[in-house]
Amino acid sequence: MLANGELVRYGGKRLKDVTGFNMVQLFVGSEGTLGVIVGITLKLLPLPAYRRTLMAPFPSLESAASAVPAILQRGVIPCALEFMEQACLKAIEERRGESVPHSDAAATLLIEVDGNHEDTLDREMEIIGDVLFEHGALDLDVADGPTKQAALWAMRRAAGEAVKGISPYKEEDTVVPRANLPKLVKGVHEICDRHGVRMICYGHAGDGNIHVNLLRGDSGSDEWNRRCAKAIPEIFEMTVSLGGTISGEHGIGFVQKNYLKQGLSSTAIDSMRAVKQALDPKGILNPSKIFPDP
Amino acid sequence: MLANGELVRYGGKRLKDVTGFNMVQLFVGSEGTLGVIVGITLKLLPLPAYRRTLMAPFPSLESAASAVPAILQRGVIPCALEFMEQACLKAIEERRGESVPHSDAAATLLIEVDGNHEDTLDREMEIIGDVLFEHGALDLDVADGPTKQAALWAMRRAAGEAVKGISPYKEEDTVVPRANLPKLVKGVHEICDRHGVRMICYGHAGDGNIHVNLLRGDSGSDEWNRRCAKAIPEIFEMTVSLGGTISGEHGIGFVQKNYLKQGLSSTAIDSMRAVKQALDPKGILNPSKIFPDP
Repeated sequence: MLANGELVRYGGKRLKDVTGFNMVQLFVGSEGTLGVIVGITLKLLPLPAYRRTLMAPFPSLESAASAVPAILQRGVIPCALEFMEQACLKAIEERRGESVPHSDAAATLLIEVDGNHEDTLDREMEIIGDVLFEHGALDLDVADGPTKQAALWAMRRAAGEAVKGISPYKEEDTVVPRANLPKLVKGVHEICDRHGVRMICYGHAGDGNIHVNLLRGDSGSDEWNRRCAKAIPEIFEMTVSLGGTISGEHGIGFVQKNYLKQGLSSTAIDSMRAVKQALDPKGILNPSKIFPDP
Repeated sequence: MLANGELVRYGGKRLKDVTGFNMVQLFVGSEGTLGVIVGITLKLLPLPAYRRTLMAPFPSLESAASAVPAILQRGVIPCALEFMEQACLKAIEERRGESVPHSDAAATLLIEVDGNHEDTLDREMEIIGDVLFEHGALDLDVADGPTKQAALWAMRRAAGEAVKGISPYKEEDTVVPRANLPKLVKGVHEICDRHGVRMICYGHAGDGNIHVNLLRGDSGSDEWNRRCAKAIPEIFEMTVSLGGTISGEHGIGFVQKNYLKQGLSSTAIDSMRAVKQALDPKGILNPSKIFPDP
């Protein structure tokens, strides 16, 4: 529903459509600032018949991160390629009150491949295993069935709540070209260490997308805010210098809007504001979101 | 480059980006009406190591078209799934001055699968073969190597020039949900027959995207234009009634702009006009394209 109250349908159940502008993708991710989405046509994919899941511990953040682009360079595209650092696994142990495998390692990767042909998956797992060991993996923990797979995923899915349960936090949603993942992971730690901010990161390494959680811990609120106000712009500056941007999947909303200028040029922001103005001239749709304060 | 002469970069080398609006996809397919694209970052995929190609003749248009959704329903996603009707093959023979396999069949499908594992491809080819015979295929002509594959593709690639070389033509770029492909192929013939317009269709059946070529042949120009002016709106009306739209990949441009109202509601068109007005207030970028005449 547009700002003037009119219902409109863009796109539909077809694989190709170049009839007019791609309003579907303009509205997707516009965070409610261009219209109210009241119906969606989704493409469904058949569930692959088979999947294989493994977890691998590494002796350093960088070795784990460096294995990620290497897997993709070998022609294997996992359906999941997740990164967790040691403090993340420790937080999960604490939260769930039970031990988590490999929580003594500096970082771990959780990797899954899926498909309809078991022998193809087994070959992909062999390639992945080779790459992981070449990049310093300490072990390969291959799930031997659905129960173990479910346990690994339950552990991964607990990460957000476990880390954010430690203390008040600010979460950044950095994304970079995958080849720059090792630099990103190393860099965010250096920046946070320098500013005395406790930080735990994890995320979708296969997408180059790492969630950087700045934790207040025992700091006083004012002191923590001051430190974050120094650290966060440096994190984004580094992310952008690595060819990345300030949000991979979470969006900008209210919290990140004053950092938007670090991710986009003023020309880019102005052109987006013009589109917003054209579709919502009275500014009634999710006001004060995405765009920086004047 | 925007209409005001400013250079702007949207997107970049990253798998995910929700930093502001998705201007990349707004500009892609905007046919030069929103800005002049002076640089593009492209994602490259590694060339798959293996491919298998086959051609299959069918006794009717509908049987060939009905095999297309059936292949996809069996979980096989070919990298190419092309449809050509008999008159298309005959036109290719005529144009190239050499015989084309299966040109006596009512329609043919050209299908290719690719990937890094030969045994997976062989199994996919078996599934495809089963589906094709279930749907009435008269034969399966599997390319026995790169020479034969190249010959099949050279033939397919000659289709456009061969059909359009017959006489002046108007080409429509219909697209429907793949399950409705048999209805589309049958329907466009019925409409053109009824209006006395010679028509040859072929295209990307796997995408539900069929190019419908209306040929003037020996008709007088005025008479042909009158007949097309009746047939084309009926073709689009049927396409839309099948859940499709008026252009799958060619765009709207100058020739199709007065049919845009058949593919989009007036609200949708007005919202696109508002975006155009916002980004090109003086209307200097590819004027008179896409949007209907007032």
